[in-house]
Amino acid sequence: MKRKIKMGMVGGGPGAFIGSVHRMAARLDGKIDLVCGAFSSDRAKSLVTAAELFLPESRCYWNYQDMIEFERKLPVGERMDCVSIVTPNITHYDIALKALDNGFHVICEKPMTFTLEQARKLAEKVQETGTIFALTHNYTGYPMVKQARAMIKAGTLGEIRKIVAEYPQGWLGDAIEGASKQAEWRVDPARAGISCCMGDIGSHVENLTEYITGLKITELCADLTTFVPGHTLDDDGNVLVRFDNGARGVLYASQMSTGEENGLSIRVYGTKGAVEWHQESPETLVVKYNNKPMQVLRRNWAGIGAEAAAASRIPAGHPEGFIEAFANIYSQFADAVAGRLEGDKDFAPDFPTAEDGLRGMAFIDAVVKSSRSDQKWLNFEV
Amino acid sequence: MKRKIKMGMVGGGPGAFIGSVHRMAARLDGKIDLVCGAFSSDRAKSLVTAAELFLPESRCYWNYQDMIEFERKLPVGERMDCVSIVTPNITHYDIALKALDNGFHVICEKPMTFTLEQARKLAEKVQETGTIFALTHNYTGYPMVKQARAMIKAGTLGEIRKIVAEYPQGWLGDAIEGASKQAEWRVDPARAGISCCMGDIGSHVENLTEYITGLKITELCADLTTFVPGHTLDDDGNVLVRFDNGARGVLYASQMSTGEENGLSIRVYGTKGAVEWHQESPETLVVKYNNKPMQVLRRNWAGIGAEAAAASRIPAGHPEGFIEAFANIYSQFADAVAGRLEGDKDFAPDFPTAEDGLRGMAFIDAVVKSSRSDQKWLNFEV
Amino acid sequence: MKRKIKMGMVGGGPGAFIGSVHRMAARLDGKIDLVCGAFSSDRAKSLVTAAELFLPESRCYWNYQDMIEFERKLPVGERMDCVSIVTPNITHYDIALKALDNGFHVICEKPMTFTLEQARKLAEKVQETGTIFALTHNYTGYPMVKQARAMIKAGTLGEIRKIVAEYPQGWLGDAIEGASKQAEWRVDPARAGISCCMGDIGSHVENLTEYITGLKITELCADLTTFVPGHTLDDDGNVLVRFDNGARGVLYASQMSTGEENGLSIRVYGTKGAVEWHQESPETLVVKYNNKPMQVLRRNWAGIGAEAAAASRIPAGHPEGFIEAFANIYSQFADAVAGRLEGDKDFAPDFPTAEDGLRGMAFIDAVVKSSRSDQKWLNFEV
Amino acid sequence: MKRKIKMGMVGGGPGAFIGSVHRMAARLDGKIDLVCGAFSSDRAKSLVTAAELFLPESRCYWNYQDMIEFERKLPVGERMDCVSIVTPNITHYDIALKALDNGFHVICEKPMTFTLEQARKLAEKVQETGTIFALTHNYTGYPMVKQARAMIKAGTLGEIRKIVAEYPQGWLGDAIEGASKQAEWRVDPARAGISCCMGDIGSHVENLTEYITGLKITELCADLTTFVPGHTLDDDGNVLVRFDNGARGVLYASQMSTGEENGLSIRVYGTKGAVEWHQESPETLVVKYNNKPMQVLRRNWAGIGAEAAAASRIPAGHPEGFIEAFANIYSQFADAVAGRLEGDKDFAPDFPTAEDGLRGMAFIDAVVKSSRSDQKWLNFEV
Repeated sequence: MKRKIKMGMVGGGPGAFIGSVHRMAARLDGKIDLVCGAFSSDRAKSLVTAAELFLPESRCYWNYQDMIEFERKLPVGERMDCVSIVTPNITHYDIALKALDNGFHVICEKPMTFTLEQARKLAEKVQETGTIFALTHNYTGYPMVKQARAMIKAGTLGEIRKIVAEYPQGWLGDAIEGASKQAEWRVDPARAGISCCMGDIGSHVENLTEYITGLKITELCADLTTFVPGHTLDDDGNVLVRFDNGARGVLYASQMSTGEENGLSIRVYGTKGAVEWHQESPETLVVKYNNKPMQVLRRNWAGIGAEAAAASRIPAGHPEGFIEAFANIYSQFADAVAGRLEGDKDFAPDFPTAEDGLRGMAFIDAVVKSSRSDQKWLNFEV
Repeated sequence: MKRKIKMGMVGGGPGAFIGSVHRMAARLDGKIDLVCGAFSSDRAKSLVTAAELFLPESRCYWNYQDMIEFERKLPVGERMDCVSIVTPNITHYDIALKALDNGFHVICEKPMTFTLEQARKLAEKVQETGTIFALTHNYTGYPMVKQARAMIKAGTLGEIRKIVAEYPQGWLGDAIEGASKQAEWRVDPARAGISCCMGDIGSHVENLTEYITGLKITELCADLTTFVPGHTLDDDGNVLVRFDNGARGVLYASQMSTGEENGLSIRVYGTKGAVEWHQESPETLVVKYNNKPMQVLRRNWAGIGAEAAAASRIPAGHPEGFIEAFANIYSQFADAVAGRLEGDKDFAPDFPTAEDGLRGMAFIDAVVKSSRSDQKWLNFEV
Repeated sequence: MKRKIKMGMVGGGPGAFIGSVHRMAARLDGKIDLVCGAFSSDRAKSLVTAAELFLPESRCYWNYQDMIEFERKLPVGERMDCVSIVTPNITHYDIALKALDNGFHVICEKPMTFTLEQARKLAEKVQETGTIFALTHNYTGYPMVKQARAMIKAGTLGEIRKIVAEYPQGWLGDAIEGASKQAEWRVDPARAGISCCMGDIGSHVENLTEYITGLKITELCADLTTFVPGHTLDDDGNVLVRFDNGARGVLYASQMSTGEENGLSIRVYGTKGAVEWHQESPETLVVKYNNKPMQVLRRNWAGIGAEAAAASRIPAGHPEGFIEAFANIYSQFADAVAGRLEGDKDFAPDFPTAEDGLRGMAFIDAVVKSSRSDQKWLNFEV
Repeated sequence: MKRKIKMGMVGGGPGAFIGSVHRMAARLDGKIDLVCGAFSSDRAKSLVTAAELFLPESRCYWNYQDMIEFERKLPVGERMDCVSIVTPNITHYDIALKALDNGFHVICEKPMTFTLEQARKLAEKVQETGTIFALTHNYTGYPMVKQARAMIKAGTLGEIRKIVAEYPQGWLGDAIEGASKQAEWRVDPARAGISCCMGDIGSHVENLTEYITGLKITELCADLTTFVPGHTLDDDGNVLVRFDNGARGVLYASQMSTGEENGLSIRVYGTKGAVEWHQESPETLVVKYNNKPMQVLRRNWAGIGAEAAAASRIPAGHPEGFIEAFANIYSQFADAVAGRLEGDKDFAPDFPTAEDGLRGMAFIDAVVKSSRSDQKWLNFEV
């Protein structure tokens, strides 16, 4: 019997959207206990969150350094086994490094780091320490995404020729972001880094595309734009891409596409068939053919493979959504950590790793470079 | 600060779909700890579930009687505060009664009881003991259902004239149900009672309709059918209905509608506008008018009222689903119980009650009676 | 080589929606020339329409009697071969009778007559005279309706068990119909007959259901309602039905369902599979199974049978619509008339006949009777 | 009263998809009589088509030269007023030129010519002769396209910032095109010109985008690919674009996107709102906002402007489609020609002109050039 693992959290104080999502995702399957946290750099706020989570004040730390230092001295079975990092990305690197150096497994919000250089170092550190590191590119947790990936791997679509993947949002289009904590740091170069839109959601597009198709981007040509008055970073980006097997594609992300919620979608065209998936209707995978009728695959209905079924919790027609997909990352992470604690070395978890995180950071770096260049194609290497 | 409440569960052993859903729903918001259970009448199975839930053997009871007897002797703060009942409905009454009689709050899977008579007694008992009783008519937990209800209450649709509500499923259509635990008892009169399809999902249609519209059914005319060889109870039922304000409607439920997953939907037509909601696409509420364009309301997007927003966890476009809706019932129940424990008497929770459960049982009784009758209209009174 | 046939029209003057549709449908395939008409009882209006249609004044008649009398004296090749009747249904019978008696083939808007008695006589007259009579139950002209019918005939769905067919409209819900010519006569018993909603669109539901399934309704239980102040006839009707093979169903039609355009749809459930078709998205036929993925059949795409292909004009993905479906009735009618003129007796046209029209009138009669009765089931015989 | 105009057709012999569409479109509104044609370079085939169209052999010409020469000598009122050109595009220029030089108005299938140089000359010729020239960029004929254009013109969406327009098809993806006449010439450089996919459907994307938004493309960066073995021209093309107001966009077209029918769609994002339209569901225009609920505008329903209403034939909910949209071009063209014949000079028809055709040819030229270049941005000027 595997253990229930114990987790500490850095970030996720009052008003933080993503911290709350991580906690729901961590709770859903009952495999993880949140035992401590450093939820905010503001001690008072951190205590508010701790109280809401029914955590004792003693496990609510002033900062992540304290948390790691104190927890590592607690006896095994009491101390946290792993750290969840849900702070703005400028801080990811330092926190992750300290956690890894102290033997704590890490699950980290994306993008993995603030700079590409940090990403390289962190990926090396993960390699070096052998600790478990998961990056919450949560969209890969959706069952029907796994179904698409499995079908492509099995050759159902034939050779992949074209991919169209996009992530339009509208919420940063109005130049009124002052109100929300989520918007504030994303448009601030000091905190968001070299890119806003591509850094935040463009890397999801890249990650989802490579995850589903198993292909790697080799060349790209980007056009990033800052539309909204007051923004200094890109709020929109369109990218032509080429893949290692000769496939071509269009990837784009936008945060000024008025009226769009979270329109992440992907269409993959092969010589034999095509798949289409929309994050806002995640239970459905449309499969199209030239020589037979379109099929609409549904989570947990007939025709679904083992990979998607394993990522499902309830029967078809009872919709699962974003939190469940997110929870699939946590569940795999928890299984990996629990396995490690029990000495199980054979488990091959299906969650995004530091290698994926590095690739994401390199993609952000590349599209920014490409956008500033007059040269059409930029080689994309990590 | 409210307390985290402690829960025991009856039922939900290995292979039980709904027990697992209840547990995920109970976990999601971190307000409830599952501290004990009597998961199966088979002790070995019960222990398997307990272990999977990381519960100590000492809190895994041989049966619900033991659980209630032992737990009530534990000190407050350690003992369970409430009981979740997820057994087949033939046993709901006895379990609920014992829990209520021993001062435990109850959250119970629907239908509330096995017979209408039991439902009356149970509703009286709830009244009499003043304990908190929630029935998991989970579909009322969806944010966009609450949005529809709020709009109708506010008069946005004008006077309601017509309702079409349906719940087609296909899974019992194949006469191969032997395989699944969920199917087995539903088609067995000894365990399912006087109705299979209407008892199981027809009562959801009734509940959802009355919840959203605020109207009460006053007359009905039913045609129940047993289509599948081997079934002895209805696997399909169509009902003409009339409401207390003069509105008319069609309600139907079916478990032999081949290819249908969980097609619960409702359309409500008023003098000024109409709403349409589909459980399989729960994030959307379509609002139609004769004199202006159709609107598509989306959970947590602009135009959504306080009721729906309060039932939401994450931003628009990141789909919430069935488990989240179910968790809204648990969350409201937990708040009510915690409030009671803290002496808060003012909280008016929005979850289905024993009164709703009684009404559901009366509906099942009425459609069965009507279906057997040559008389067109049957008065529906509870 | 078949002849281009010549047609006269009765009705369809200025402002008449359905007359215009008939003319577009008659024109589309270039098989029919409109050569004369009696478009309105108001001579001035009739002349306006004639001029718009580039018809000479000499072929614009004062009334249908004149038209039939004069035209039959014209030489073959010049005179009209057939009559299109697009007047309010109170006049259908007299016009059709006179046309048939004078050897003109007839294509007639539905419902076929004003009374059931007239329908019986007209059906006999058609039989007796051997003339060609088509009724424009146009929805049967849609290619994907023909696809559904062919699949059911071929046994793809197994034995049919349940049918849900509906036709909600909202346009008569507002009590402001005075403005439109189309609305005016429909709510007037003197002109619309014993039923408004069921007579106008309920009979489409009946016709479509029997056409697609090949089944016959044998019993029904109806609840018709007049909701809108000022209406004297039904503006809504819900009907439970039973079919000759034991299948059950729900049919309903409504003209006060606020916000609905022309929501005719049908779902047919068999032991092996189910089909679903929506008139507002007519190019798609959804096919559902319990044991394999849902298929979405598309007009003229792979997987479509000969019947649907024959009723198609352009490739998949270039939407055909209502006018094209309507034109399929006209095209079949023209082929039948041209064949008759050429002595071709073997052609078996696929269009609604006087028998279908009689059945439709009987259905209207039956639902009105049933709605007034306290008896649950009414035997439906024609 | 306007005249019914008389038309001759070049091309459209047996098996020609687009010729048949043009004829249905020309017939639908009863404003045009097809009086003669040169349907095929193969005389026998041409006669087959003439017979099917009930045309006398005397008006079936050996070639377009004969047709124009003979017809111009016929008396006015008998001779054709205009020519419809539905041949492969390599021949458009010569036919159009001769027609214009002989005073016949022209309606021509797109792309307008074979080369950009021809397009320039033809546009000049149209200007010079003052004859009416319409190009069947038929997608602009859809009512909801006109609705989108009107809304943008009226400022409903604010300043336009981003456009995503695409036209994926799958039919040329299989390397089995030998079978179809439509496919054969499109992949043959000698007949299709410098581009297959972008020339055939890419120019629709360009035309639709500029029509709806009123913006002009000023820079582009293209990646055209030939995927299918046996193809020598592009069967896929992705283009980044910049517009004259600073807006950015992605345009793409594809004929190897397996399983896609005619997936032309456009999304236009402005500072205040956005519109989304899909050719395969042409009756609907989705309008999205950040600060209010999504609206779904429907042809001829409430909220539709005069432009869309004028392009509509039947009520909302009775679907109009591709042929009706195409017929709108013909209807406007017929009105323009009839007006000219009657001396009406004020009519400002809404159909694509030779200027649009020239722009389309320039776009095709530009994307081919850009695709071959290492330079990122190519200035687009006509």
